[in-house]
Amino acid sequence: MSREIEVLEANEAFYRAIATRDADAMEALWSRQAPVACIHPGWDAIDGHAEVLGSFRALLESSSAPHLQCAVAAAHVVGDTAFVTCHELVAGARFVATNVFTREEGAWRMIHHHSSALGPVQPRVHRPEPELRS
Amino acid sequence: MSREIEVLEANEAFYRAIATRDADAMEALWSRQAPVACIHPGWDAIDGHAEVLGSFRALLESSSAPHLQCAVAAAHVVGDTAFVTCHELVAGARFVATNVFTREEGAWRMIHHHSSALGPVQPRVHRPEPELRS
Repeated sequence: MSREIEVLEANEAFYRAIATRDADAMEALWSRQAPVACIHPGWDAIDGHAEVLGSFRALLESSSAPHLQCAVAAAHVVGDTAFVTCHELVAGARFVATNVFTREEGAWRMIHHHSSALGPVQPRVHRPEPELRS
Repeated sequence: MSREIEVLEANEAFYRAIATRDADAMEALWSRQAPVACIHPGWDAIDGHAEVLGSFRALLESSSAPHLQCAVAAAHVVGDTAFVTCHELVAGARFVATNVFTREEGAWRMIHHHSSALGPVQPRVHRPEPELRS
């Protein structure tokens, strides 16, 4: 199995843990050894294993826990680290995410998650000269 | 010099290239060997060296090129890969970014940039139970 497919499976496991509200599965996905962080949509960065996992526990236990689906995931592997870009479909809204993984004890484990709102008319194509806003 | 400081300097070089509209410096910052990607605020992911660099060239050549400052950068190093979270201050607005680097030919080079709008009241603190939106 290629490393890209392994990473995409780890990425799918992340969204499955959210869909099934499985806090244990979520915790198992994150690195134990590396520094970790997380940026939820509209929020500032959260640093540290306890804080990141705490934010996901709060999310999974919340009555407003989102029912989201992952789409158009693309894996980029660089040695023992990888990042995935993908869409998150939530109640008609579309977000775009970066998920970063490192290979640890034979498994791909998350070290960072950054999710943000996608503009209303943003097909997944390559634009030669986008009107950038940053 | 610690790896964290090296990575923070590479991160600063990225924002300096934007501030000085230096397309050559920007190009030199990105990996030649690894797969690269980029997510500008509100936009979909852009994949590939030519497309990513093309988007930054368009940004730097644009009459509306932003005058942005980087703040509160935090580096997270995992072997030969690292990611930085930081704020981008642009004309009174505040964005939050993830910048991913890999060590290549003795230098830290970018492989991914993801920037997104930060909500209006989001101090950089650890909240025990944020009201998450993803």
